[in-house]
Amino acid sequence: MLLNCDLGESFGAWKVGLDEQAMAVIDCANIACGFHGGDPDVISNTLKLAKQHQVMIGAHPSYPDLQGFGRRSMNISPDALTNLIHYQVAALDGMAQVQGLSLTYIKPHGALYNDMMKDETLLTTIIKATASYPKELKLMILASAQQQAHRTLAAKLGVQLLFEAFADRLYTDEGLLTSRTKANAVHNKTALMAQVKQLVQHGCVTTSSGKQLPLQADTLCVHGDNEASIAQIKEISILLSQSK
Amino acid sequence: MLLNCDLGESFGAWKVGLDEQAMAVIDCANIACGFHGGDPDVISNTLKLAKQHQVMIGAHPSYPDLQGFGRRSMNISPDALTNLIHYQVAALDGMAQVQGLSLTYIKPHGALYNDMMKDETLLTTIIKATASYPKELKLMILASAQQQAHRTLAAKLGVQLLFEAFADRLYTDEGLLTSRTKANAVHNKTALMAQVKQLVQHGCVTTSSGKQLPLQADTLCVHGDNEASIAQIKEISILLSQSK
Amino acid sequence: MLLNCDLGESFGAWKVGLDEQAMAVIDCANIACGFHGGDPDVISNTLKLAKQHQVMIGAHPSYPDLQGFGRRSMNISPDALTNLIHYQVAALDGMAQVQGLSLTYIKPHGALYNDMMKDETLLTTIIKATASYPKELKLMILASAQQQAHRTLAAKLGVQLLFEAFADRLYTDEGLLTSRTKANAVHNKTALMAQVKQLVQHGCVTTSSGKQLPLQADTLCVHGDNEASIAQIKEISILLSQSK
Amino acid sequence: MLLNCDLGESFGAWKVGLDEQAMAVIDCANIACGFHGGDPDVISNTLKLAKQHQVMIGAHPSYPDLQGFGRRSMNISPDALTNLIHYQVAALDGMAQVQGLSLTYIKPHGALYNDMMKDETLLTTIIKATASYPKELKLMILASAQQQAHRTLAAKLGVQLLFEAFADRLYTDEGLLTSRTKANAVHNKTALMAQVKQLVQHGCVTTSSGKQLPLQADTLCVHGDNEASIAQIKEISILLSQSK
Repeated sequence: MLLNCDLGESFGAWKVGLDEQAMAVIDCANIACGFHGGDPDVISNTLKLAKQHQVMIGAHPSYPDLQGFGRRSMNISPDALTNLIHYQVAALDGMAQVQGLSLTYIKPHGALYNDMMKDETLLTTIIKATASYPKELKLMILASAQQQAHRTLAAKLGVQLLFEAFADRLYTDEGLLTSRTKANAVHNKTALMAQVKQLVQHGCVTTSSGKQLPLQADTLCVHGDNEASIAQIKEISILLSQSK
Repeated sequence: MLLNCDLGESFGAWKVGLDEQAMAVIDCANIACGFHGGDPDVISNTLKLAKQHQVMIGAHPSYPDLQGFGRRSMNISPDALTNLIHYQVAALDGMAQVQGLSLTYIKPHGALYNDMMKDETLLTTIIKATASYPKELKLMILASAQQQAHRTLAAKLGVQLLFEAFADRLYTDEGLLTSRTKANAVHNKTALMAQVKQLVQHGCVTTSSGKQLPLQADTLCVHGDNEASIAQIKEISILLSQSK
Repeated sequence: MLLNCDLGESFGAWKVGLDEQAMAVIDCANIACGFHGGDPDVISNTLKLAKQHQVMIGAHPSYPDLQGFGRRSMNISPDALTNLIHYQVAALDGMAQVQGLSLTYIKPHGALYNDMMKDETLLTTIIKATASYPKELKLMILASAQQQAHRTLAAKLGVQLLFEAFADRLYTDEGLLTSRTKANAVHNKTALMAQVKQLVQHGCVTTSSGKQLPLQADTLCVHGDNEASIAQIKEISILLSQSK
Repeated sequence: MLLNCDLGESFGAWKVGLDEQAMAVIDCANIACGFHGGDPDVISNTLKLAKQHQVMIGAHPSYPDLQGFGRRSMNISPDALTNLIHYQVAALDGMAQVQGLSLTYIKPHGALYNDMMKDETLLTTIIKATASYPKELKLMILASAQQQAHRTLAAKLGVQLLFEAFADRLYTDEGLLTSRTKANAVHNKTALMAQVKQLVQHGCVTTSSGKQLPLQADTLCVHGDNEASIAQIKEISILLSQSK
């Protein structure tokens, strides 16, 4: 199970994330494209880091909302959204090629990601935007209870999905993430490591109602915000290598 | 001599230029990339028009300044400028590929274009940015008295230049454009057509001091702002076809 | 019944609206504050026009979305929305004072306006934002079937409402505007003038289902987009003066 | 001698500066207005902190350049710059009034500040913009060798200046700050405290060439970036209180 992490989300003089440290311990970097974070300098530097650590790279496009960090839903038409995604993916794709790198996948960011998991019309728009991009890219989405249906939908449209799971988040019965506004939405360290084990060894998570929900995850989403997050990634790495 | 025109400079609800009409009568479209004009929807529509009319396309990157329409100089470091250019060119390049099109050249916009013609360090940065882009692109600059020196400089860095001339602008002895703040900067129709003839038949222009300045122009810059501009393009077209 | 019009919606090099002509024939100018249209130069020029024609001025704040012209709903928290409104109103208010003018009211723009009319929580947030602004400002909203309830709600929060009606739009039974996506949403000229007469003489409109809906309008929204719109305003003006 | 500090320079999800700690130990807060940092939420929170600590507040307007954090010079016309300043000051002014606070001064930010100190035409534009704002505001500029000339210039235009000095920066003979690109531009802690003493006790600084340059500073610029900066402010405070 690959480790993926959102990176390159600094902007101008504002720095977030320990990107250098995170890049050294992950497998896939979801790189911001300038619409919620990332600017041309940040993108260039993030790609350099990815190259140095031979990390697989994906585009992390967003609603156009710097102030909201892409976390606020916007009501955008399918055509306009397709263009927004193509623009962002293309900008990152070309800058990656400048450094001899090649994009592997697209992972929508923030509110766009959450909206896509709740709205099949939106998901379909995003799958089609992935399919119509002139390079074969995979689409990373949440492994949920709809995983098989999503796989079928994407296959019909010619797109291969990468399913990701979350170690640190409590799942609903639908296999979605419990809203961060709920008290128990984010696991403590013990629960987090238990959830990783469960995913790796049994291919399932325990939902908020106590059910065992089967999830086949290709990749696990981790965070590189601070020293504790980096340490957490390393622990997860060790657990994963022991589970092979 | 090819006719090139700045297009795709609308933004959101704001429309400028008779792009549909202009695209039908030009050879090369300089397409805005989103930093002074153009947004993902405008770019997509402009590319569709270019495809329909089989017009050669170039990226028209700018300083990041929507309010100033890229017409205000900004003091940007060479690395940051390189990244800004790569980002914009890449965004357009990928969106062009979505429609099965391929970029041919880069033409800097507005203040970036003017600054580049006055500052060889800046020109060198832009030539290098063109060279380091992962696709072979030409760079369109002004044919000036420095034309041969610029050609040599670019050749050393592995970039082929496209030289453009202006039909409607009075030239200085250096082969630069007289500032629009000067009363006689823009030719009337008669002077304009005379300058086109002179360029085509004699490969020169008459400068503000009355000198004959030799200029080898690959392309002529025309405008598609309004009905009168479109009519002007058609007249120039006829004159050019008669001069062959 | 006063005539109000959205003005100052140009941005940078992009011009929209015949503001000079419109300002001469209206009573109230809703001036864009920079978040969907308008920039500091446009605002300054629009205020100059308002001063010259002694037109009452209001702030026309929007969701922060230049590309979408404020026409796309955004999911913004009440506190953040309050701050967004205060920022925009304050910017316009201070620039008005530079010219010796004083704001009279706030009219939310585009998607923010539509959302407010459908969501009482949002309307309450906007009324409270109006009340907490340090100057006594009225709030302009749509005169709908909820008009009396809205007046009561606003009065409790210390805000006086200005109710506006539309001449050119077909009303639903709830007194909202039929969506522009519907074929019959926008009246032809005859229906438009009939609706103005009905509003002035009988204080009601005929809804899409044929009902007579009573509406007490303080002001009528008119448009200054083009020559036809300006002519329309003049005709409405004449009709209104004859009805006194 | 009052201590002033740039605050409220976070933006959206990006946080910079220990504003809460800094606000507790300074006299004057230069608050970003949204064009290089600061957004309506950040502005509101920064004003709350200023109110809580009864700190004098000033507007900190900038060139419009979020990515460059206002540190890149832009070539903006006097009228456009005046409007940009009025817009930013007005936005902050109104939001301050929402909380019952009142602005005292304007301090230009970053490249705008540096450009103003090198270009008297630009300084004059900014003084005039301060004068034409409808509230009596002071203008904070660098105390340089031109201090008396600047005071006279501003007085003629009806503006009172606040002169600031820097503790941590090496001065040129002209009383400007040595560029940060020079190795010795920023003082170590010992040199910094010595420069504070010199300013307080002798009203002068030692320039890069070893000269004693008299400077009458109303206020000292301090920084709140990190724990070390906060500790530094406290030490300077103690030194200042001992010098009274």
